[in-house]
Amino acid sequence: MCTIKKVLVGQSGGPTAVINASLAGVIRQAHEHGLEIIGMRNGIEGFLEGRTANLTDLFHPARNHHTYGKQAVELLARTPSSFLGSCRYKLPDYEKDLPFYQHLAHSLASLDIDGILYIGGNDSMDTVEKISAYFAANHTDIPVIGIPKTIDNDLEGTDHTPGFGSAARYIATVVQELARDAEVYGKPSITIIETMGRDAGWLGAASALAREKNEQAPDIILLPEVAFDEERLISKIGALFECKKSIIIVASEGVRRPNGSTLLAKSKVRMDAFGHLADQSGNALYLAELCQKHFDCKIRGINLNSLQRCAIHAASETDLREAWQLGAAGVDALLAGKTACMVGLQRVSDTPYQTEIHCVAVAEIANKVKHVPADMISNDGCWVTEKALTYLRPLISNGNHEAESQEDGLPVFIPKLSQNNGF
Amino acid sequence: MCTIKKVLVGQSGGPTAVINASLAGVIRQAHEHGLEIIGMRNGIEGFLEGRTANLTDLFHPARNHHTYGKQAVELLARTPSSFLGSCRYKLPDYEKDLPFYQHLAHSLASLDIDGILYIGGNDSMDTVEKISAYFAANHTDIPVIGIPKTIDNDLEGTDHTPGFGSAARYIATVVQELARDAEVYGKPSITIIETMGRDAGWLGAASALAREKNEQAPDIILLPEVAFDEERLISKIGALFECKKSIIIVASEGVRRPNGSTLLAKSKVRMDAFGHLADQSGNALYLAELCQKHFDCKIRGINLNSLQRCAIHAASETDLREAWQLGAAGVDALLAGKTACMVGLQRVSDTPYQTEIHCVAVAEIANKVKHVPADMISNDGCWVTEKALTYLRPLISNGNHEAESQEDGLPVFIPKLSQNNGF
Repeated sequence: MCTIKKVLVGQSGGPTAVINASLAGVIRQAHEHGLEIIGMRNGIEGFLEGRTANLTDLFHPARNHHTYGKQAVELLARTPSSFLGSCRYKLPDYEKDLPFYQHLAHSLASLDIDGILYIGGNDSMDTVEKISAYFAANHTDIPVIGIPKTIDNDLEGTDHTPGFGSAARYIATVVQELARDAEVYGKPSITIIETMGRDAGWLGAASALAREKNEQAPDIILLPEVAFDEERLISKIGALFECKKSIIIVASEGVRRPNGSTLLAKSKVRMDAFGHLADQSGNALYLAELCQKHFDCKIRGINLNSLQRCAIHAASETDLREAWQLGAAGVDALLAGKTACMVGLQRVSDTPYQTEIHCVAVAEIANKVKHVPADMISNDGCWVTEKALTYLRPLISNGNHEAESQEDGLPVFIPKLSQNNGF
Repeated sequence: MCTIKKVLVGQSGGPTAVINASLAGVIRQAHEHGLEIIGMRNGIEGFLEGRTANLTDLFHPARNHHTYGKQAVELLARTPSSFLGSCRYKLPDYEKDLPFYQHLAHSLASLDIDGILYIGGNDSMDTVEKISAYFAANHTDIPVIGIPKTIDNDLEGTDHTPGFGSAARYIATVVQELARDAEVYGKPSITIIETMGRDAGWLGAASALAREKNEQAPDIILLPEVAFDEERLISKIGALFECKKSIIIVASEGVRRPNGSTLLAKSKVRMDAFGHLADQSGNALYLAELCQKHFDCKIRGINLNSLQRCAIHAASETDLREAWQLGAAGVDALLAGKTACMVGLQRVSDTPYQTEIHCVAVAEIANKVKHVPADMISNDGCWVTEKALTYLRPLISNGNHEAESQEDGLPVFIPKLSQNNGF
């Protein structure tokens, strides 16, 4: 095992509100151990083009040429979106494109890099796996460690992913607000709120937290894990209109028909380099048009779009803390001689909420998708179970950072006027 | 002048994050003066159907049957959307529909109402004017006072409207976040963010505050006050691409062509009872499709939709305070014998920010629209002047309630990595 002196770090995939908190954790921990830290610009793609940034020059108090102030690492941690820039770049297998990896090895050698950290989701763990596989085959002693990040929470090997808690808190908060907004006219209405999440329903499921503080929405959650049934949805909405006027539906972008096709025609759906749904799948719009055919009422489609993944103003303090800790743990893993691993969270207890950090082989998790399991989905397929809520609750907690009229990371509103408590 | 004992209060028009802060101000001030306070359910429309709620029963500490807790009025103030429900209901002229007003007078008499407060925007001030005109003609001694409310800030007779500051703060905040999110891949992209605001550009203009903390977006603001020029927009975007990759455009929903038509075909635009644009005008979508024809890059349309009017989680503390104060001032105006008036804010000084409350005759303001004046719009028509920023800044301030990494009501991010400060 070599002595590590200089570490390369990159951010990859879709940004989150707290991805820079992980980078901040990496930088602070690297400096604590006297390591120099170099950032890839735009992930592995930019690095291969020779684009880097010396983060020690920028952030080390002893070297900081007033580019950033004294609290720079803390400020970085509360800046949303990837500070180093990101990429969606699928690496070739090393057996198929040796020159690619030789170029990579040369680039690393020219900078004297002796450890790599890559912050990202399941696609990024594919990158970690491929680079470490090449190094293993070539007896190159440069450890590679993945640090999890994705609002989608679809990564195996960790209880949950940094970024998810903040997006979950944002979604639950705005669903509470939008539900209050939607019912002011006292007239029948359907509001469809679309979340991201690709093929996993975690973000949609998180909207169930909007009912934690005695609110009465959402009414229906559509998850990719449950095949979309148009007739059942329409009949469910019809039944809901029997007892309430304003109906709130949360639809995950990844909802699919029983035959696996997306709700929108294929031609309207864009796929990314990894074959995943690109954002803005348009389910809110599709469902709004569907409802329009069946119900004569106000119908509104709201796509939470990238708002949900960059809302640092509504971030979960638990999420921010864990993102930082996992960044620091990545440095620790390198120093402990680990490679081809991802640092992850293992839940020890729900109440009080406790986690431990562990290492998991990337080969076991890369390119896999962690779906919402069946025992977290209600029998009728359009709500979540208590098990899901128990899992979700601690992730949006703000601990001691609670703002006025907030509890457990959620806004608290005055109970609604019922039809009865009148004059 | 009669002695006022029982006041009727209603909320009307589109909800805001702080409309209940005005209601809270009304309730607290009414109780301070020993008045009983009755709420209209769903504004004047619900009242005429006999639907009311006794707010003294619900909120007075001496009468509170544990429906709401001790801090109920404070909790109400931080609950978004109209607690009493709302309506969009245009009253007939009393000369044309006397039975309508006789029914109203009868309903008021049956409840012993001797004062009316109506919280709303310019349409609601039309209601205040018509009711008070009928009372004046019939020598009915029931004063009617309007309390301003609208995120659109398009109401004459007040420096600004409660609700606007919170929506402005929300918009500036998310534009800062979305701009950071949009540029992570380092590839050319256009992001179009649509705001509400009807025919006034105040909400669009408020997005300029997103540049206050050294951020570099938005790049272009499209206001309804400036006729839309397709060619100029495309050439402006082309010029921007010469020096930056990620372009952020904020488009007000009310943007119109030189001939006054909306951007979308008329058939796609819904109008409300007052002939205004209904929400979701779809300009973001229209402009995204337009840009797609001219630029080969990632294009994203984001409609802030009702998110911007109910975001109590991002409310401005200044706005919350002023909303409450104007509610209380409405009660004071009734007690001072005023009628056919709206209470409004008069700005005394920008720095330090100081306002005074005054009364203005509703006849002078009802159904009028306060546009962004020419001297607040830059010469090229797609940005705002320093005068506009001076006007806007204090409205989003949080005073002493600033969260971590916030200044002047806005998030503060770490400066971006430039192309130069690399390795």
